[in-house]
Amino acid sequence: MKRIYLDYNATTPIHPEVLETMLPYYGDSFGNPSTIYFFGQETKKATEEAREKVASLLGANPEEIVFTSGGTEADNFALKGVAFALEEKGRHIITSAIEHHAVLSTCQYLEKRGFKVTYLPVDRHGWLDPQKVQDAITKDTILISIIHANNEVGTIEPISEIGEIAERRGIYFHTDAVQTVGKVPVKLDKLRVDLLSLSAHKFYGPKGIGALYVRSGTHIHPLIHGGHQERVRRAGTENVPGIVGLGRAAEIASREMEGEAKRIENLRNKLEKKIKENIPHVYINGHPSKRSPNTLNVSFEFAEGESLLLNLDLKGIAVSTGSACTAGSLEPSHVLKAMGVPPQLAQASLRFSLGWDTKEEDINRTVETLKEIVGRLREMSPLYQQERT
Amino acid sequence: MKRIYLDYNATTPIHPEVLETMLPYYGDSFGNPSTIYFFGQETKKATEEAREKVASLLGANPEEIVFTSGGTEADNFALKGVAFALEEKGRHIITSAIEHHAVLSTCQYLEKRGFKVTYLPVDRHGWLDPQKVQDAITKDTILISIIHANNEVGTIEPISEIGEIAERRGIYFHTDAVQTVGKVPVKLDKLRVDLLSLSAHKFYGPKGIGALYVRSGTHIHPLIHGGHQERVRRAGTENVPGIVGLGRAAEIASREMEGEAKRIENLRNKLEKKIKENIPHVYINGHPSKRSPNTLNVSFEFAEGESLLLNLDLKGIAVSTGSACTAGSLEPSHVLKAMGVPPQLAQASLRFSLGWDTKEEDINRTVETLKEIVGRLREMSPLYQQERT
Repeated sequence: MKRIYLDYNATTPIHPEVLETMLPYYGDSFGNPSTIYFFGQETKKATEEAREKVASLLGANPEEIVFTSGGTEADNFALKGVAFALEEKGRHIITSAIEHHAVLSTCQYLEKRGFKVTYLPVDRHGWLDPQKVQDAITKDTILISIIHANNEVGTIEPISEIGEIAERRGIYFHTDAVQTVGKVPVKLDKLRVDLLSLSAHKFYGPKGIGALYVRSGTHIHPLIHGGHQERVRRAGTENVPGIVGLGRAAEIASREMEGEAKRIENLRNKLEKKIKENIPHVYINGHPSKRSPNTLNVSFEFAEGESLLLNLDLKGIAVSTGSACTAGSLEPSHVLKAMGVPPQLAQASLRFSLGWDTKEEDINRTVETLKEIVGRLREMSPLYQQERT
Repeated sequence: MKRIYLDYNATTPIHPEVLETMLPYYGDSFGNPSTIYFFGQETKKATEEAREKVASLLGANPEEIVFTSGGTEADNFALKGVAFALEEKGRHIITSAIEHHAVLSTCQYLEKRGFKVTYLPVDRHGWLDPQKVQDAITKDTILISIIHANNEVGTIEPISEIGEIAERRGIYFHTDAVQTVGKVPVKLDKLRVDLLSLSAHKFYGPKGIGALYVRSGTHIHPLIHGGHQERVRRAGTENVPGIVGLGRAAEIASREMEGEAKRIENLRNKLEKKIKENIPHVYINGHPSKRSPNTLNVSFEFAEGESLLLNLDLKGIAVSTGSACTAGSLEPSHVLKAMGVPPQLAQASLRFSLGWDTKEEDINRTVETLKEIVGRLREMSPLYQQERT
């Protein structure tokens, strides 16, 4: 049985070209880039070339890219780094109720350390009205952080519009773009952000590496102190193979992303259509049009998400009930809750996220299997029996 | 020309078995360990096996190992994590003047955030008298952090004795053991520490991964907030290949370390003896006996360290002038300064650190080459000419 992987928002397999580019740095090219002899200069050059590739993907200057251990560290660095750098100026931060936990938990930590955080509500599609951001700004606001595309439902937020508001008010603006960079074009001149988080393993790069874009001149404290790496913005010996892999993933994305996004969106739309046609009592969660091309979140009424997931897994199909980072927790999704999805539908939801290896036959097999499993689970549901009579 | 690498304290090449163990996780085994389906359970199992191997190397329980992005993050996590967790109890931290920058810069940051830090002096061998720690303790002391073996000169500090003092006073004790773990036996029952930092790339594992040992029951705040990974102590998708590589490096170290340490110490002693025999006006920096078996730091009077390094590099020999993390900086080493080494000798120092691939012929070629280069540089030194007349 061929396994079908439909959880690309949780993580992606590495692109073979990415691994090929990394391997020499697990071999003879192992020098510490901070050293000035041959072995170090070789890896220094490789990390700087990778920095240029990441910068080029975003339309940034290379010196604005700070490598981190991943998206979560980048989010922590952005929020804590700006908060502590500007605490004399003000202590108010604006974010949304549907951020990734890397932003939400960091905000909760900052609240414990004397900052005030506004968590803006979203509409039923998970969309944040820029006017709400405008209205939440006070004279103490030092930072706005809004996710680019939500990881659970895929809704794409109006980052450019919020960026314009932030710029007009002279407030730093961060976006967690972990779910968009490398999947759809993300260009800084359009987004108008000061800080942007990205993660390699979400677009066919290795785990354990990411970056924070920091616009030139932004006041920010390091999260990790020590040596002078990354222009004294992030200490620690550089993860050279990881950095080189991220660079190559960025290069591949620049080349293939747009075509792939169209192909994947087409398959995602087919999946959505076939689910609606074949299975009754389903509800799509997420914005009808402003949505990441690879993401589909569906509630299957009268079926429990975790049971669906486990039954699909037995049939060799991998999907998610929400964010991988809180999988196993019994709490319903904070994202669906913020969208006003009733608890029984939130608990009945599955996230399908498509990628590089997804093919039309995978979509067909997934829908057939789902139809069978949903039917079976509903047969056992007293609520469903009640509904039918 | 075969290149000779004598900077194993800066970084090491990866062990071929380590890479081999990592590769499947850059292939089909790519799942996010936080997911509950097949792909995730596979990598979850692999990370837990790696955790057991790291724990076994130290004599810890697996759940006391928290994976980080490296030694610097582990140091930041230990110091900031304990400081902010215990700030209600007291705000005094004790460390030494010869710590790695990952500890020193973090302490300086904590000073800016209202903590008081005592930087204890060391003797001319770089050795810290435990009595000095005892005397520095106040009722506000919440944490002691002392490096296990100094990275620049190799001096091994009396961690067990300091551990006993800390334990008696009920104060948390952290050691940066980045330069000892995997090179010499490091056992927690002997060291009596509550927190210990280690880094994979210092002992033939990959860059970008390390760990903090956190004794059960230790109060510590996360450094990186977000998802529930690492039992809510370190958020972010696990760097699975890195973790698996660290585990394998720990396993190999358990097996080979003791024999290797003896072989390398023997070569290091030969290097030291031959340098003394062949080159006049040399001074050994570091403890005569309590020293990491692979490290030799020598001042070549009337020669400039950076010129020596560059000339050796032209001959295919890689050595260091001190810590890689501050290479390129014109500041003399803070470690040699704290040991009372006069500036002209501190600027004339080289660090040789030996490892896995170091052979007797490398030692011989290094001494011959050094003799020639030191002689040539001294010929150009007005001070040396003056000395000779």
